[in-house]
Amino acid sequence: MSRAIILGGSRGIGKAISESLKSIEIDVFAASRKDVDTSNLDSVKNFVKVHDQTDILVLNTGGPPPKEFMNIDEEDWNKYHRQLFLGFCIVLQNIKVNDDGYIFLISSSVIKEPNSKLIVSSAYRAAFSEVFKIISKDYAAKNISCINIAPGLINTNRTKEVVENIEEHKKSLPMKRLGEPEEIGNFVKAIIENKIKYLSGVVINFDGANSSFIF
Amino acid sequence: MSRAIILGGSRGIGKAISESLKSIEIDVFAASRKDVDTSNLDSVKNFVKVHDQTDILVLNTGGPPPKEFMNIDEEDWNKYHRQLFLGFCIVLQNIKVNDDGYIFLISSSVIKEPNSKLIVSSAYRAAFSEVFKIISKDYAAKNISCINIAPGLINTNRTKEVVENIEEHKKSLPMKRLGEPEEIGNFVKAIIENKIKYLSGVVINFDGANSSFIF
Amino acid sequence: MSRAIILGGSRGIGKAISESLKSIEIDVFAASRKDVDTSNLDSVKNFVKVHDQTDILVLNTGGPPPKEFMNIDEEDWNKYHRQLFLGFCIVLQNIKVNDDGYIFLISSSVIKEPNSKLIVSSAYRAAFSEVFKIISKDYAAKNISCINIAPGLINTNRTKEVVENIEEHKKSLPMKRLGEPEEIGNFVKAIIENKIKYLSGVVINFDGANSSFIF
Amino acid sequence: MSRAIILGGSRGIGKAISESLKSIEIDVFAASRKDVDTSNLDSVKNFVKVHDQTDILVLNTGGPPPKEFMNIDEEDWNKYHRQLFLGFCIVLQNIKVNDDGYIFLISSSVIKEPNSKLIVSSAYRAAFSEVFKIISKDYAAKNISCINIAPGLINTNRTKEVVENIEEHKKSLPMKRLGEPEEIGNFVKAIIENKIKYLSGVVINFDGANSSFIF
Repeated sequence: MSRAIILGGSRGIGKAISESLKSIEIDVFAASRKDVDTSNLDSVKNFVKVHDQTDILVLNTGGPPPKEFMNIDEEDWNKYHRQLFLGFCIVLQNIKVNDDGYIFLISSSVIKEPNSKLIVSSAYRAAFSEVFKIISKDYAAKNISCINIAPGLINTNRTKEVVENIEEHKKSLPMKRLGEPEEIGNFVKAIIENKIKYLSGVVINFDGANSSFIF
Repeated sequence: MSRAIILGGSRGIGKAISESLKSIEIDVFAASRKDVDTSNLDSVKNFVKVHDQTDILVLNTGGPPPKEFMNIDEEDWNKYHRQLFLGFCIVLQNIKVNDDGYIFLISSSVIKEPNSKLIVSSAYRAAFSEVFKIISKDYAAKNISCINIAPGLINTNRTKEVVENIEEHKKSLPMKRLGEPEEIGNFVKAIIENKIKYLSGVVINFDGANSSFIF
Repeated sequence: MSRAIILGGSRGIGKAISESLKSIEIDVFAASRKDVDTSNLDSVKNFVKVHDQTDILVLNTGGPPPKEFMNIDEEDWNKYHRQLFLGFCIVLQNIKVNDDGYIFLISSSVIKEPNSKLIVSSAYRAAFSEVFKIISKDYAAKNISCINIAPGLINTNRTKEVVENIEEHKKSLPMKRLGEPEEIGNFVKAIIENKIKYLSGVVINFDGANSSFIF
Repeated sequence: MSRAIILGGSRGIGKAISESLKSIEIDVFAASRKDVDTSNLDSVKNFVKVHDQTDILVLNTGGPPPKEFMNIDEEDWNKYHRQLFLGFCIVLQNIKVNDDGYIFLISSSVIKEPNSKLIVSSAYRAAFSEVFKIISKDYAAKNISCINIAPGLINTNRTKEVVENIEEHKKSLPMKRLGEPEEIGNFVKAIIENKIKYLSGVVINFDGANSSFIF
């Protein structure tokens, strides 16, 4: 039986991935904020002492509330630098992913279309995506696939906090709806279940045809 | 039971997709070159008269042999303009994809990293990817997902024709191997089987972590 | 004194480039539609017999009127395949650009953000951009720089034809105005005048901060 | 007379930009590391108290020495987070750029093709590029152009430190040479001199046709 560690696994997209993986008999550790707070590096260091090995790793965490550039202060930058970037780096440096494994990064569509309301998230999620891309080549040598899923608007509590007047907003989306967390959960499950390995080093926009750029 | 039309369905990646979809009880029409030759527009027009409706459509066709830019003549351009671009446009204009369906385009990683040996393929596959992106927004309104899979080097007869000294080449790849057609076949199957719909309007590089660009 | 051939040089952006280059004593041949019609391959072949060598080449041509995908017919595709793609290929195969020269392609911002009203243009301009990228590496060996300028909305007669209610549209643009053809003309001039050569193999969006993608 | 503040203005690319702008009678403050150390936020805060306004701002700084991912420690991340990201944010939050001005960011081609030797630089330069993209839209309303220049290998002391066996490496480049700092200096000068404003919100690869991606 394979083992999975899922950060931010107690709610939203992380929870949906946890449920999907459990349904195919994977031994899932769905880490909640109580288990590890990626904005707190001591918490991360303690976590990786205990959870130091896995077959499947899902890097997932929420972002900050919307804030305009001029109002973002040093403390904001540093906190989310830790939460969205540095904590994940420490996780990757310390948790051994077993050969033939998988690492999924749940980033955001803002890495390709940065958003003025989500400027902190756009910046640090993009930064970590660069790291993830680079190391995907090293992991490939061990047949470990690295897949960066960049969701658009997904039907989670977080989205309700970030987007005002969500019913109105839906009408502007090509599918007239938000994505469901289960779609991402099942997507992750399907890749693992079908032993798809050659999909790696890739950013996959998951946004219901909403983006406008070609690549 | 759902129905699928798979162009180029008798060999390589197309065949692997056909086999995968048959395994989940989809009624597959795997079109061979005898059924439809996308480089011949009359052939395409006849084909779409008979096959005018489907739940799942896979746009897939081989490309031209390698040729340097200075040696490509008008006939080459026109032939592959039909095969890689125009034939697919006619297919989309004439085959009705049912609501809640799927359209997969099997393009190539050369659309993002164009290749001097595959210049014709780079050009026209990119051109059709633009069309596919645009219309993905229209299809989204009918809950039809449009997914552009851009394979790197896949273990098919075609690849053996295009790449010299393939064993040597493998060593330069991050995974030290080509992709298997079944990985793409199973990927397509998994998306359909799990009713993943919010993945749409997206280009998915499928290249074993070989590309160097971030997005 | 350097010589320049500017296709579509009698109006709009092409004319502005012609004027700018003339101002720095370049011997400009500003080709109008009477001199060469890139949608007519015989016209192109005749043109390149006479104009078979240059220091600076500017590939520039208008696009088709807006048309929805379902209404585009074979004749439309073929005409603009010639005008936006094939004619330029023949030009590049037959006009010798002298060492240390420049080739500018005036494409469009739709190559990166394809537009449902400009689907033909999005497709074939992207296709030619792929060709241009590939051959930029060959030209680089002769110190010839290849620069693809992708304009957003520029204040030309063509834009007035394509965009309805242009005054209203301006308000939605970050700079609250269209770009001026002279800005592109002067940009081209400035690169040549300053002998900037290392800028090559690049697509430069020229759209007044309007695009939303990061790269 | 216009005024310019150029960070990292005493050597390499920054120095070349300083020299170019001086040649067109711009009043240049070429800040050296003694004037401001962007890795030290107190230094940055003191600097922006004195230099609180400008017409032209050039954000430019060196990056860290090459280091493998597994060897990068918290202190490295934090130092270059400040140097490549946070210092620039504070600069933008505190230096007023006058209407009709220019902001240039000198980033690196690694933001689009991240490099395993320059992982810290790839990450934080990409992060800041996201911020720069977002705020380019705000600056556009004041007719301030934001231009992100992403150089490939440029002939500076820094490059000699980063690239081993540079003569050998040159042979692999399309132009068989490094870029010259003066080419970037003159490019910046030319844009200002010609009052080109519609070029904004854009990343311009400046790499001698070396990159392989199309966009």
